[in-house]
Parts: sequence; C-alpha cells; structure tokens
Amino acid sequence: MDGMTLPAPARLSLNTATTKNWTLREAVDGAARAGLQTVGLWRDRVAEVGTGPAAAMVRDAGLRVSSLCRGGFLTAADRAGTAMALDDNRAAINEAAELGAPVLVMVVGGLPPGVRDLPGARARVRDRLTELVPYATEHSVRLALEPLHPMYCADRAVLSTLKQALDLAADHRPAEVGVVVDSFHTWWDPELRPQIQRAGTDGRIASYQICDWNLPIAADALLSRGMMGDGFIDFAAITRWVDAAGYRGDIEVEIFSADIWARDGDVVLDLMIERYRELVEPFLTG
Amino acid sequence: MDGMTLPAPARLSLNTATTKNWTLREAVDGAARAGLQTVGLWRDRVAEVGTGPAAAMVRDAGLRVSSLCRGGFLTAADRAGTAMALDDNRAAINEAAELGAPVLVMVVGGLPPGVRDLPGARARVRDRLTELVPYATEHSVRLALEPLHPMYCADRAVLSTLKQALDLAADHRPAEVGVVVDSFHTWWDPELRPQIQRAGTDGRIASYQICDWNLPIAADALLSRGMMGDGFIDFAAITRWVDAAGYRGDIEVEIFSADIWARDGDVVLDLMIERYRELVEPFLTG
Repeated sequence: MDGMTLPAPARLSLNTATTKNWTLREAVDGAARAGLQTVGLWRDRVAEVGTGPAAAMVRDAGLRVSSLCRGGFLTAADRAGTAMALDDNRAAINEAAELGAPVLVMVVGGLPPGVRDLPGARARVRDRLTELVPYATEHSVRLALEPLHPMYCADRAVLSTLKQALDLAADHRPAEVGVVVDSFHTWWDPELRPQIQRAGTDGRIASYQICDWNLPIAADALLSRGMMGDGFIDFAAITRWVDAAGYRGDIEVEIFSADIWARDGDVVLDLMIERYRELVEPFLTG
Repeated sequence: MDGMTLPAPARLSLNTATTKNWTLREAVDGAARAGLQTVGLWRDRVAEVGTGPAAAMVRDAGLRVSSLCRGGFLTAADRAGTAMALDDNRAAINEAAELGAPVLVMVVGGLPPGVRDLPGARARVRDRLTELVPYATEHSVRLALEPLHPMYCADRAVLSTLKQALDLAADHRPAEVGVVVDSFHTWWDPELRPQIQRAGTDGRIASYQICDWNLPIAADALLSRGMMGDGFIDFAAITRWVDAAGYRGDIEVEIFSADIWARDGDVVLDLMIERYRELVEPFLTG
C-alpha cells in the first residue's frame, strides 16, 4: 500500500455471487488483492474444490468467511422431500463449520409444486427450523433467516418480511437464529425501520447484505440486482438503522446481475469499494 | 337464457384492463352479452368516447360502473408536479362522479426521478390525500387506496401493504377513503388475514380485485398477472377472509397479461366466469 491508496474498508465482504464468473480461487485472490478481509461463499463455489481445501484457501489468503450461502428450502410437503431438505441443511451446517463461517444464510423455499397453502408452507418452515437448530448449535453455526423480496414468495422464499423472520427467530436464542437484512429484499418495507430496531434489541442481525434495486426487473427476476448507487435504495438510511441497531459485523455485497457479471472482476471490486466508501461507510459508527 | 345456461355471477365485474384490445363499446357489449352487471373502467378507455357518452353507454347496456381506475401518482416532490397531480385527481373524481362509479382506485405513485427518500414520498401521499378527500366527498366518490406489490414500489406505488393503506385511510372516514384488496398485489403478505379483518371492522374494503400470480415474472413486470387458477394464489382463502370481513361489493377481474390480451375477448370472459364460479363464488356468503 502506497500513500495514494486507502486501506480497503474493514467490514466490507465480497460475496462470490457478485463475481460469478470467478472461480473460488480467483474470488479469494481478487478479494485479497483488493485488501478485503472477508468473503461470503456460495456452496457451489465451495464444492468446486471441496470444503477442506476451500477453508484452507481462504485462510492461507489471510481472509475469513463472512457467511455461507445457503441452507433452507424447507417447505416440502411430503416426507421424502422433507428428509432430503433436512439432510442437505445438515450438510450445509457441516460445511459452514468447516469453513469457519459464523453464519449459514437460510433461504427458506417457496411453495411446493401444486401447493397454494401459503400459511401451511410457512408453518413447515417454522417446524423444520426447530429441527435444525440443535444440530447447527452443536456445530457453532448460527442460522440466519433471510426474508426475500415478495416477488420471490412463490418460488424461492415464503419468508417475505423482516418482521416475519424475527417472529420465526423468536422461538430460538439470538445466538442460534438470527436474521439477514438485505437491502434489495427489504428496502420497500414500510416496517423496515422499526423491525431493524426490534432486531437490535436482542442482537438478531446476523448479516447485512447490500446491493441496489434497479429497474426494469430483469427477464430472469433473480438477476434484478444492481451496484449500490445505480438504483433506488437509500443506503444512508438503511445503514444508519442497521448501525443504530448495534450491528458491527461484516457487510456483504451480493449482486446477481448479468451486467455486473459481464465486467472484469477486479473492476467490479474497485467499484464496489468506491460505492461502499461513498454510500455506506460514512453512516457506520462502529 | 335457456335451461343450459346459468345466470352470470351477480358480483363479478369485468375490468376493462382484462380485455385491453376491446374498445369501451366492445367491452360494455361483451360484459352485457356475458350477463354481467358491472364493468370497472380505466380512464383511457373512458376518454375514447368522453365521460358523458361513456356513462350513457354503460347505463344503456343495463350495466353499472364498479370502479374507475385510476387516480393517484401523488408523490411529486416539486410544486408544479404536485399541482398537476392534484388537478388530474380532481378531474378523475369528476369523471367517477359522472360515471356513477362509487369508487376511484388510487395508485399512489413511486419515487420521483432521482429521489430515494421513501418515507418522504410516503408522507407526501398522506398530505395530498388529505387535500383531495373533501373534493371527492363533495362529489360522492370514495377514494380507494390500492397497495401495489412491493416490486412496483420504486416506479408505481410507494403504498406496498394493506396495513400501510389502512393506516393512511384511518385519517379519514370509511365512507371517504377505503382500500382495495387485490389478490395479485397482496397474496404474499404474512399480515394479509389480520389486515383484512381489521379492514372489516369499519368497512374499509372498497374493492376486491382478483387475478393470479404467475411465473415467470413477465419481461414487462406490469404484465405478470394471470387468470385465476393458473398461478399460485389461494383464492378460496383470500375470498373467505374478504367475505368474513363483511365485504359484499363487486369483485373485479383485472388482468394485465399479453397472453390474455392475445385471446378473443368473449373467450376470456367465459373463462373468467368459469374460474370465478369454481375458485371464488363458493367462498362467498353474501
């Protein structure tokens, strides 16, 4: 680092979804090169090399894992689907533990095929979470419930608001089950501020993930995210709320976007750091 | 009507958005031919012939207007934009009155260009609604606040949940300001049932609009709606809740969909009546 270069922001983490075309090796090297201290990993990226080697790769680069994405998909209505989901989540917990990831992000799943009973699907998530918590706790992995934008309610997550996530988490101790505040999924929510405050009262925020809401919604709705500053989200406001709630953990940039993926990874990292410095870091007190 | 044909359901209304390629004349004739008693009108359709002739056309066909769509777009941050919006809403109220529409549906508008202050935009909606209510009341038109799906928060409506709409409506008497329950916009909401109950306690439901949530989300997100039964929504549940809340008014089918629009209007009407009979009517007590 010369006199011209600021150290990279300490709390900023690169989620591997942001640099989708990078292998795990490239993402770890890229994050280290940019001066970051943490990476958020997706399981498919970890699977490229295996969990043990992935853990070593991150550690040897001087990095930590901020979170593992993702467990969940707990809404199956049949016995076989349920058993498969629980097995897969236990495997994810094992991986998180081996990676030293403090948090396993849980995307709870949408409606099972042909099922329209949304309260029923939500009740199953509650029950299956309760089955998983002891296993996660044994492995020192905190489950982080991620409410997804309501446009994914049918096919990805019946957990649609932070309030709902906190209600579900309340069955368990904060160290066992926390919540993810993801700007993209929650920015529209009229209850966002009070629910972030509520989450702060017992330290439920397990992860703060950031990216912007851009328009138009992408043809593949999963890829509708944008770089902070390119869309409609007020990062100053949400960051202040999360900060006031006492969250002092990693802040992951997780952008699914064909446009971002088409760019060079190092360029994306530089831009992400620049935008974070401008739109997020000034509103952090810790 | 011969012995083979049931009378069309008494509470079912054709919103002209569903048969977009029909002129007002064609929509009115189509609805009458199908045996319906009401039509929900969009203002551009009314403008084709002028308000007076449109009112006469509906009346002469033996129909009523269930609602006029739409007023709103009240979020402008500047004086000129505000004045224009209020003028346009007064014009819409005049039209609703002349058409005998008991309800003017209010789509409140998204974030103004370059503005990211969402609570500020929501506060402006509250203020401007208060400015409009006396004018609407003088003209015997009830304003019906429509929460839109959160995926339209940035560009169409900062009013995203039924709770938020009811909170806003609470500043005014139920006869002055009601809410729209639209299945497409609200089905995902974990608070939907209690908020529909709440709306029932003082008769706030001014309109029940139905269509389904289909996937994938259309390339033009506004056109993502589907025919009841083709998607993910549990119409039995929502209809029971709306019914238990005491709503006895018209039930409009409003489908924005390139697929539906490509079909013959009479075929769409027949299908709409069939699906309504199967998925909605059995759950009505009044």
